[in-house]
Amino acid sequence: RTMPETLAAMTPYLPRAAVITDVGSVKGWVVRTLEPLLGAQMALVAAHPVAGKESTGAGAADESLFIGRRTIITPSARSTADAIDRVERLWRATGSHVERMAPDEHDEVLARASHLPQVVASALAAALCGERVGEHEAAAYGAGGLRDTTRIAASSAEMWRDIVLTNRDAILAALGLFRVALNEFERAIRVGDVARFEEIFNRGRAMREGLK
Amino acid sequence: RTMPETLAAMTPYLPRAAVITDVGSVKGWVVRTLEPLLGAQMALVAAHPVAGKESTGAGAADESLFIGRRTIITPSARSTADAIDRVERLWRATGSHVERMAPDEHDEVLARASHLPQVVASALAAALCGERVGEHEAAAYGAGGLRDTTRIAASSAEMWRDIVLTNRDAILAALGLFRVALNEFERAIRVGDVARFEEIFNRGRAMREGLK
Repeated sequence: RTMPETLAAMTPYLPRAAVITDVGSVKGWVVRTLEPLLGAQMALVAAHPVAGKESTGAGAADESLFIGRRTIITPSARSTADAIDRVERLWRATGSHVERMAPDEHDEVLARASHLPQVVASALAAALCGERVGEHEAAAYGAGGLRDTTRIAASSAEMWRDIVLTNRDAILAALGLFRVALNEFERAIRVGDVARFEEIFNRGRAMREGLK
Repeated sequence: RTMPETLAAMTPYLPRAAVITDVGSVKGWVVRTLEPLLGAQMALVAAHPVAGKESTGAGAADESLFIGRRTIITPSARSTADAIDRVERLWRATGSHVERMAPDEHDEVLARASHLPQVVASALAAALCGERVGEHEAAAYGAGGLRDTTRIAASSAEMWRDIVLTNRDAILAALGLFRVALNEFERAIRVGDVARFEEIFNRGRAMREGLK
Protein backbone atom coordinates (compact mmCIF):
# COMPACT_ATOMS: atom_id res chain seq x y z
CA ARG A 1 0.00 0.00 0.00
CA THR A 2 1.82 3.09 -1.11
CA MET A 3 -0.78 5.82 -0.45
CA PRO A 4 -0.83 5.54 3.37
CA GLU A 5 2.96 5.17 3.47
CA THR A 6 3.39 8.24 1.28
CA LEU A 7 0.92 10.28 3.30
CA ALA A 8 2.52 9.25 6.60
CA ALA A 9 5.93 10.27 5.26
CA MET A 10 4.62 13.64 4.02
CA THR A 11 2.51 14.68 6.99
CA PRO A 12 5.32 16.17 9.12
CA TYR A 13 6.28 18.54 6.28
CA LEU A 14 2.79 19.72 5.34
CA PRO A 15 1.09 22.91 6.58
CA ARG A 16 -1.06 22.27 9.66
CA ALA A 17 -4.31 22.94 7.79
CA ALA A 18 -3.33 21.26 4.52
CA VAL A 19 -6.04 19.98 2.21
CA ILE A 20 -5.30 16.42 1.04
CA THR A 21 -6.82 15.02 -2.13
CA ASP A 22 -6.14 12.14 -4.53
CA VAL A 23 -7.09 10.93 -8.02
CA GLY A 24 -7.62 7.21 -7.36
CA SER A 25 -10.38 5.03 -8.82
CA VAL A 26 -11.59 3.69 -5.45
CA LYS A 27 -12.81 6.05 -2.75
CA GLY A 28 -14.21 4.13 0.28
CA TRP A 29 -10.87 2.47 1.03
CA VAL A 30 -8.95 5.72 0.51
CA VAL A 31 -11.16 7.67 2.90
CA ARG A 32 -11.13 4.95 5.57
CA THR A 33 -7.37 4.42 5.30
CA LEU A 34 -6.08 7.98 4.94
CA GLU A 35 -8.32 9.93 7.31
CA PRO A 36 -6.82 8.45 10.49
CA LEU A 37 -3.35 9.48 9.31
CA LEU A 38 -4.14 13.20 9.00
CA GLY A 39 -3.07 15.97 11.36
CA ALA A 40 -5.88 17.38 13.52
CA GLN A 41 -6.54 20.43 11.31
CA MET A 42 -6.04 18.76 7.96
CA ALA A 43 -8.94 18.05 5.63
CA LEU A 44 -9.31 15.16 3.18
CA VAL A 45 -11.35 15.64 -0.02
CA ALA A 46 -11.02 12.50 -2.09
CA ALA A 47 -11.59 12.92 -5.83
CA HIS A 48 -11.85 10.74 -8.92
CA PRO A 49 -11.49 12.23 -12.40
CA VAL A 50 -13.34 9.72 -14.60
CA ALA A 51 -11.06 9.87 -17.60
CA GLY A 52 -8.08 7.77 -18.42
CA LYS A 53 -6.02 5.97 -20.97
CA GLU A 54 -4.47 2.55 -21.18
CA SER A 55 -1.06 4.26 -21.23
CA THR A 56 0.71 5.59 -18.13
CA GLY A 57 3.62 7.87 -17.25
CA ALA A 58 4.57 11.43 -18.10
CA GLY A 59 4.87 10.61 -21.79
CA ALA A 60 1.13 9.90 -21.88
CA ALA A 61 0.17 13.33 -20.49
CA ASP A 62 -2.71 15.04 -22.34
CA GLU A 63 -3.86 18.54 -21.40
CA SER A 64 -7.32 17.95 -22.90
CA LEU A 65 -7.92 14.68 -21.01
CA PHE A 66 -10.40 16.10 -18.50
CA ILE A 67 -12.33 18.54 -20.70
CA GLY A 68 -16.04 17.73 -20.58
CA ARG A 69 -15.44 14.64 -18.39
CA ARG A 70 -16.75 13.99 -14.90
CA THR A 71 -14.79 14.38 -11.69
CA ILE A 72 -16.47 12.82 -8.68
CA ILE A 73 -15.73 14.35 -5.27
CA THR A 74 -16.51 12.09 -2.30
CA PRO A 75 -16.70 14.26 0.83
CA SER A 76 -16.32 12.59 4.19
CA ALA A 77 -16.12 13.50 7.89
CA ARG A 78 -12.81 15.33 7.34
CA SER A 79 -13.95 17.39 4.35
CA THR A 80 -14.65 20.99 5.40
CA ALA A 81 -16.81 23.18 3.16
CA ASP A 82 -13.77 25.33 2.36
CA ALA A 83 -11.60 22.32 1.46
CA ILE A 84 -14.34 20.88 -0.79
CA ASP A 85 -14.61 24.23 -2.53
CA ARG A 86 -10.87 24.39 -3.19
CA VAL A 87 -10.73 20.89 -4.67
CA GLU A 88 -13.83 21.46 -6.78
CA ARG A 89 -12.37 24.67 -8.19
CA LEU A 90 -9.15 22.83 -9.06
CA TRP A 91 -11.06 20.24 -11.12
CA ARG A 92 -13.34 22.79 -12.77
CA ALA A 93 -10.17 24.58 -13.94
CA THR A 94 -9.21 21.49 -15.98
CA GLY A 95 -12.50 21.69 -17.89
CA SER A 96 -14.09 18.82 -15.94
CA HIS A 97 -17.68 18.65 -14.65
CA VAL A 98 -17.67 18.17 -10.88
CA GLU A 99 -20.26 16.25 -8.85
CA ARG A 100 -20.44 14.69 -5.39
CA MET A 101 -21.16 11.19 -4.14
CA ALA A 102 -20.70 9.25 -0.92
CA PRO A 103 -17.45 7.21 -1.09
CA ASP A 104 -19.13 3.77 -1.07
CA GLU A 105 -21.78 4.87 -3.56
CA HIS A 106 -18.97 6.01 -5.88
CA ASP A 107 -17.32 2.61 -5.57
CA GLU A 108 -20.51 0.71 -6.49
CA VAL A 109 -21.11 2.95 -9.51
CA LEU A 110 -17.53 2.62 -10.77
CA ALA A 111 -17.43 -1.13 -10.13
CA ARG A 112 -20.20 -1.42 -12.76
CA ALA A 113 -19.14 1.31 -15.20
CA SER A 114 -15.36 0.87 -15.14
CA HIS A 115 -14.02 -2.06 -13.10
CA LEU A 116 -16.41 -4.64 -14.60
CA PRO A 117 -15.52 -3.74 -18.23
CA GLN A 118 -11.83 -4.03 -17.31
CA VAL A 119 -12.23 -7.48 -15.76
CA VAL A 120 -14.30 -8.67 -18.73
CA ALA A 121 -11.90 -7.24 -21.32
CA SER A 122 -8.86 -8.73 -19.56
CA ALA A 123 -10.52 -12.15 -19.22
CA LEU A 124 -11.49 -12.11 -22.90
CA ALA A 125 -7.98 -11.17 -23.97
CA ALA A 126 -6.44 -13.77 -21.63
CA ALA A 127 -8.76 -16.47 -23.03
CA LEU A 128 -7.50 -15.76 -26.56
CA CYS A 129 -3.81 -15.48 -25.64
CA GLY A 130 -1.97 -18.16 -27.63
CA GLU A 131 -5.27 -19.77 -28.70
CA ARG A 132 -4.87 -21.63 -32.00
CA VAL A 133 -7.14 -23.47 -34.41
CA GLY A 134 -4.88 -25.78 -36.39
CA GLU A 135 -2.06 -23.60 -37.69
CA HIS A 136 -4.05 -20.37 -37.28
CA GLU A 137 -3.64 -18.01 -34.34
CA ALA A 138 -7.26 -17.12 -33.60
CA ALA A 139 -6.70 -13.55 -32.38
CA ALA A 140 -4.96 -12.62 -35.65
CA TYR A 141 -8.35 -12.95 -37.38
CA GLY A 142 -10.11 -10.42 -35.18
CA ALA A 143 -11.21 -7.18 -36.83
CA GLY A 144 -12.12 -3.88 -35.18
CA GLY A 145 -14.55 -5.61 -32.81
CA LEU A 146 -11.84 -7.63 -31.08
CA ARG A 147 -9.49 -4.65 -31.02
CA ASP A 148 -12.03 -2.35 -29.36
CA THR A 149 -13.38 -4.95 -26.98
CA THR A 150 -9.90 -5.71 -25.63
CA ARG A 151 -8.27 -2.26 -25.88
CA ILE A 152 -8.23 -1.70 -22.10
CA ALA A 153 -6.66 -5.12 -21.53
CA ALA A 154 -3.38 -3.31 -22.36
CA SER A 155 -3.72 -1.25 -19.13
CA SER A 156 -1.34 -1.35 -16.17
CA ALA A 157 -1.56 -4.49 -14.03
CA GLU A 158 -0.26 -2.57 -11.01
CA MET A 159 -3.08 -0.02 -11.10
CA TRP A 160 -5.75 -2.67 -11.56
CA ARG A 161 -4.30 -4.92 -8.89
CA ASP A 162 -4.78 -2.07 -6.41
CA ILE A 163 -8.31 -1.36 -7.64
CA VAL A 164 -9.49 -4.96 -7.31
CA LEU A 165 -7.87 -5.34 -3.89
CA THR A 166 -9.55 -2.20 -2.52
CA ASN A 167 -12.96 -2.49 -4.24
CA ARG A 168 -13.35 -6.26 -4.22
CA ASP A 169 -16.90 -6.65 -2.93
CA ALA A 170 -18.44 -4.13 -5.33
CA ILE A 171 -16.53 -5.69 -8.25
CA LEU A 172 -17.72 -9.19 -7.35
CA ALA A 173 -21.31 -7.87 -7.19
CA ALA A 174 -20.90 -6.27 -10.63
CA LEU A 175 -19.47 -9.55 -11.98
CA GLY A 176 -22.61 -11.23 -10.65
CA LEU A 177 -24.76 -8.92 -12.78
CA PHE A 178 -22.65 -9.72 -15.82
CA ARG A 179 -22.90 -13.47 -15.20
CA VAL A 180 -26.70 -13.31 -15.07
CA ALA A 181 -26.79 -11.61 -18.49
CA LEU A 182 -24.12 -13.92 -19.96
CA ASN A 183 -25.88 -17.06 -18.68
CA GLU A 184 -29.21 -15.97 -20.16
CA PHE A 185 -27.56 -15.07 -23.44
CA GLU A 186 -25.63 -18.35 -23.66
CA ARG A 187 -28.75 -20.36 -22.86
CA ALA A 188 -30.68 -18.55 -25.62
CA ILE A 189 -27.88 -19.41 -28.08
CA ARG A 190 -27.69 -23.03 -26.91
CA VAL A 191 -31.42 -23.76 -27.24
CA GLY A 192 -31.92 -21.51 -30.29
CA ASP A 193 -34.35 -19.19 -28.48
CA VAL A 194 -34.31 -16.43 -31.09
CA ALA A 195 -36.79 -14.14 -29.30
CA ARG A 196 -34.78 -14.25 -26.08
CA PHE A 197 -31.48 -13.78 -27.96
CA GLU A 198 -32.85 -10.69 -29.70
CA GLU A 199 -34.33 -9.33 -26.47
CA ILE A 200 -30.96 -9.50 -24.67
CA PHE A 201 -29.03 -8.29 -27.73
CA ASN A 202 -31.35 -5.30 -28.11
CA ARG A 203 -31.10 -4.51 -24.40
CA GLY A 204 -27.32 -4.24 -24.89
CA ARG A 205 -27.82 -2.18 -28.02
CA ALA A 206 -30.12 0.23 -26.19
CA MET A 207 -27.57 0.68 -23.41
CA ARG A 208 -24.77 1.31 -25.91
CA GLU A 209 -26.77 3.80 -27.93
CA GLY A 210 -27.59 5.65 -24.71
CA LEU A 211 -23.88 6.28 -23.97
CA LYS A 212 -22.72 9.76 -24.80
CA ARG B 1 -33.23 -18.33 -43.90
CA THR B 2 -32.93 -15.87 -46.72
CA MET B 3 -29.73 -17.07 -48.45
CA PRO B 4 -31.09 -20.45 -49.69
CA GLU B 5 -34.41 -18.85 -50.64
CA THR B 6 -32.64 -16.11 -52.56
CA LEU B 7 -30.32 -18.56 -54.31
CA ALA B 8 -33.20 -20.89 -55.24
CA ALA B 9 -35.11 -17.93 -56.70
CA MET B 10 -32.07 -16.71 -58.67
CA THR B 11 -30.81 -20.03 -60.03
CA PRO B 12 -33.15 -20.24 -63.06
CA TYR B 13 -31.93 -16.84 -64.30
CA LEU B 14 -28.19 -17.37 -63.83
CA PRO B 15 -25.72 -18.51 -66.51
CA ARG B 16 -25.26 -22.29 -66.47
CA ALA B 17 -21.65 -22.06 -65.27
CA ALA B 18 -22.15 -19.15 -62.86
CA VAL B 19 -19.73 -18.71 -59.96
CA ILE B 20 -21.61 -18.14 -56.69
CA THR B 21 -19.95 -16.41 -53.73
CA ASP B 22 -21.07 -14.66 -50.54
CA VAL B 23 -19.70 -12.37 -47.83
CA GLY B 24 -21.19 -13.99 -44.71
CA SER B 25 -19.46 -14.50 -41.36
CA VAL B 26 -20.17 -18.24 -41.15
CA LYS B 27 -18.95 -20.62 -43.84
CA GLY B 28 -19.69 -24.27 -42.92
CA TRP B 29 -23.44 -23.74 -42.87
CA VAL B 30 -23.35 -21.71 -46.09
CA VAL B 31 -21.43 -24.35 -47.98
CA ARG B 32 -23.59 -27.24 -46.70
CA THR B 33 -26.84 -25.38 -47.37
CA LEU B 34 -26.14 -23.70 -50.70
CA GLU B 35 -24.16 -26.35 -52.59
CA PRO B 36 -27.14 -28.71 -53.04
CA LEU B 37 -29.14 -25.86 -54.62
CA LEU B 38 -26.66 -25.13 -57.42
CA GLY B 39 -27.05 -26.08 -61.06
CA ALA B 40 -24.77 -28.92 -62.23
CA GLN B 41 -22.12 -26.65 -63.78
CA MET B 42 -22.18 -23.88 -61.18
CA ALA B 43 -19.36 -23.39 -58.69
CA LEU B 44 -19.59 -22.10 -55.14
CA VAL B 45 -16.63 -20.20 -53.64
CA ALA B 46 -17.67 -18.95 -50.22
CA ALA B 47 -15.77 -15.90 -48.93
CA HIS B 48 -15.56 -13.85 -45.76
CA PRO B 49 -14.03 -10.37 -45.80
CA VAL B 50 -12.94 -9.88 -42.17
CA ALA B 51 -13.78 -6.21 -41.85
CA GLY B 52 -16.95 -4.57 -40.71
CA LYS B 53 -18.65 -1.84 -38.80
CA GLU B 54 -21.43 -1.69 -36.27
CA SER B 55 -23.45 0.30 -38.84
CA THR B 56 -25.30 -1.26 -41.79
CA GLY B 57 -26.92 -0.17 -45.05
CA ALA B 58 -25.80 1.78 -48.10
CA GLY B 59 -25.21 4.91 -46.02
CA ALA B 60 -22.43 3.09 -44.15
CA ALA B 61 -20.50 2.23 -47.35
CA ASP B 62 -16.74 2.84 -47.13
CA GLU B 63 -14.49 2.28 -50.13
CA SER B 64 -11.42 1.83 -47.93
CA LEU B 65 -13.05 -0.79 -45.66
CA PHE B 66 -11.15 -3.78 -47.07
CA ILE B 67 -7.74 -2.24 -47.67
CA GLY B 68 -5.07 -4.23 -45.81
CA ARG B 69 -7.70 -6.51 -44.20
CA ARG B 70 -8.06 -10.25 -44.61
CA THR B 71 -10.55 -12.03 -46.83
CA ILE B 72 -10.86 -15.75 -46.14
CA ILE B 73 -11.89 -17.99 -49.03
CA THR B 74 -13.26 -21.40 -48.01
CA PRO B 75 -13.13 -23.68 -51.05
CA SER B 76 -15.33 -26.77 -51.05
CA ALA B 77 -16.27 -29.65 -53.35
CA ARG B 78 -17.95 -27.27 -55.78
CA SER B 79 -15.11 -24.76 -56.01
CA THR B 80 -13.22 -25.19 -59.30
CA ALA B 81 -9.71 -23.80 -59.60
CA ASP B 82 -10.96 -21.24 -62.13
CA ALA B 83 -13.84 -20.12 -59.89
CA ILE B 84 -11.51 -19.78 -56.88
CA ASP B 85 -9.16 -17.66 -58.97
CA ARG B 86 -11.96 -15.32 -60.07
CA VAL B 87 -13.21 -14.76 -56.52
CA GLU B 88 -9.70 -14.25 -55.18
CA ARG B 89 -8.96 -11.65 -57.86
CA LEU B 90 -12.19 -9.83 -56.98
CA TRP B 91 -11.12 -9.52 -53.33
CA ARG B 92 -7.54 -8.58 -54.13
CA ALA B 93 -8.93 -5.72 -56.24
CA THR B 94 -10.49 -4.21 -53.06
CA GLY B 95 -7.05 -4.04 -51.42
CA SER B 96 -7.70 -7.08 -49.21
CA HIS B 97 -5.23 -9.88 -48.42
CA VAL B 98 -6.69 -13.23 -49.48
CA GLU B 99 -6.11 -16.59 -47.80
CA ARG B 100 -7.80 -19.99 -47.76
CA MET B 101 -9.24 -22.16 -45.00
CA ALA B 102 -11.57 -25.14 -44.76
CA PRO B 103 -15.14 -23.93 -44.00
CA ASP B 104 -15.35 -25.47 -40.50
CA GLU B 105 -11.84 -24.32 -39.61
CA HIS B 106 -12.86 -20.78 -40.58
CA ASP B 107 -15.90 -21.03 -38.31
CA GLU B 108 -13.84 -22.13 -35.30
CA VAL B 109 -11.31 -19.33 -35.83
CA LEU B 110 -14.01 -16.67 -36.22
CA ALA B 111 -16.04 -17.98 -33.27
CA ARG B 112 -13.03 -17.07 -31.10
CA ALA B 113 -11.84 -13.89 -32.82
CA SER B 114 -15.18 -12.29 -33.69
CA HIS B 115 -18.30 -14.07 -32.42
CA LEU B 116 -17.04 -14.44 -28.84
CA PRO B 117 -16.17 -10.73 -28.46
CA GLN B 118 -19.65 -9.87 -29.79
CA VAL B 119 -21.42 -12.13 -27.30
CA VAL B 120 -19.30 -10.81 -24.43
CA ALA B 121 -19.78 -7.16 -25.42
CA SER B 122 -23.53 -7.58 -25.83
CA ALA B 123 -23.87 -9.40 -22.48
CA LEU B 124 -21.83 -6.68 -20.74
CA ALA B 125 -23.95 -3.92 -22.28
CA ALA B 126 -27.19 -5.79 -21.46
CA ALA B 127 -26.07 -6.26 -17.84
CA LEU B 128 -25.62 -2.49 -17.46
CA CYS B 129 -28.85 -1.51 -19.27
CA GLY B 130 -30.95 0.47 -16.79
CA GLU B 131 -28.63 -0.49 -13.91
CA ARG B 132 -28.74 2.15 -11.14
CA VAL B 133 -26.93 2.75 -7.86
CA GLY B 134 -29.22 4.98 -5.85
CA GLU B 135 -30.11 7.86 -8.12
CA HIS B 136 -27.11 7.31 -10.41
CA GLU B 137 -27.31 5.50 -13.74
CA ALA B 138 -24.15 3.38 -13.60
CA ALA B 139 -23.36 3.38 -17.35
CA ALA B 140 -23.31 7.19 -17.42
CA TYR B 141 -20.10 7.04 -15.36
CA GLY B 142 -18.19 4.89 -17.81
CA ALA B 143 -15.27 6.51 -19.59
CA GLY B 144 -13.53 5.40 -22.78
CA GLY B 145 -13.10 1.86 -21.44
CA LEU B 146 -16.82 1.18 -21.27
CA ARG B 147 -17.41 2.86 -24.61
CA ASP B 148 -14.78 0.78 -26.41
CA THR B 149 -15.63 -2.48 -24.69
CA THR B 150 -19.31 -2.20 -25.69
CA ARG B 151 -18.99 -0.48 -29.08
CA ILE B 152 -19.99 -3.57 -31.07
CA ALA B 153 -23.06 -4.09 -28.86
CA ALA B 154 -24.66 -1.48 -31.16
CA SER B 155 -24.47 -3.94 -34.09
CA SER B 156 -27.44 -5.40 -35.95
CA ALA B 157 -29.41 -8.04 -34.02
CA GLU B 158 -30.58 -9.62 -37.29
CA MET B 159 -27.05 -10.27 -38.53
CA TRP B 160 -25.92 -11.69 -35.20
CA ARG B 161 -29.03 -13.83 -34.78
CA ASP B 162 -28.13 -15.54 -38.05
CA ILE B 163 -24.48 -15.96 -37.02
CA VAL B 164 -25.29 -17.58 -33.67
CA LEU B 165 -27.92 -19.85 -35.22
CA THR B 166 -25.52 -21.11 -37.91
CA ASN B 167 -22.28 -21.29 -35.88
CA ARG B 168 -23.71 -22.31 -32.51
CA ASP B 169 -21.38 -25.14 -31.54
CA ALA B 170 -18.17 -23.25 -32.26
CA ILE B 171 -19.50 -20.18 -30.40
CA LEU B 172 -20.41 -22.28 -27.35
CA ALA B 173 -16.91 -23.78 -27.38
CA ALA B 174 -15.38 -20.29 -27.54
CA LEU B 175 -17.62 -19.17 -24.65
CA GLY B 176 -16.27 -22.13 -22.70
CA LEU B 177 -12.71 -20.79 -23.16
CA PHE B 178 -13.83 -17.37 -21.96
CA ARG B 179 -15.56 -18.84 -18.90
CA VAL B 180 -12.39 -20.67 -17.86
CA ALA B 181 -10.42 -17.41 -17.93
CA LEU B 182 -13.21 -15.42 -16.25
CA ASN B 183 -13.64 -18.00 -13.48
CA GLU B 184 -9.90 -18.05 -12.74
CA PHE B 185 -9.78 -14.26 -12.75
CA GLU B 186 -12.82 -13.90 -10.49
CA ARG B 187 -11.44 -16.46 -8.06
CA ALA B 188 -8.11 -14.59 -7.89
CA ILE B 189 -10.01 -11.37 -7.10
CA ARG B 190 -12.22 -13.08 -4.51
CA VAL B 191 -9.39 -14.66 -2.55
CA GLY B 192 -6.94 -11.79 -3.11
CA ASP B 193 -4.45 -13.96 -5.02
CA VAL B 194 -2.34 -11.09 -6.38
CA ALA B 195 0.16 -13.27 -8.23
CA ARG B 196 -2.60 -15.14 -10.07
CA PHE B 197 -4.47 -11.90 -10.81
CA GLU B 198 -1.36 -10.38 -12.34
CA GLU B 199 -0.57 -13.54 -14.29
CA ILE B 200 -4.02 -13.56 -15.95
CA PHE B 201 -4.03 -9.78 -16.42
CA ASN B 202 -0.62 -9.87 -18.08
CA ARG B 203 -1.67 -12.77 -20.30
CA GLY B 204 -4.49 -10.53 -21.57
CA ARG B 205 -2.11 -7.63 -21.95
CA ALA B 206 0.30 -9.74 -24.00
CA MET B 207 -2.52 -10.84 -26.30
CA ARG B 208 -3.71 -7.26 -26.78
CA GLU B 209 -0.25 -5.92 -27.47
CA GLY B 210 0.23 -8.66 -30.06
CA LEU B 211 -2.77 -7.47 -32.11
CA LYS B 212 -1.86 -5.44 -35.15
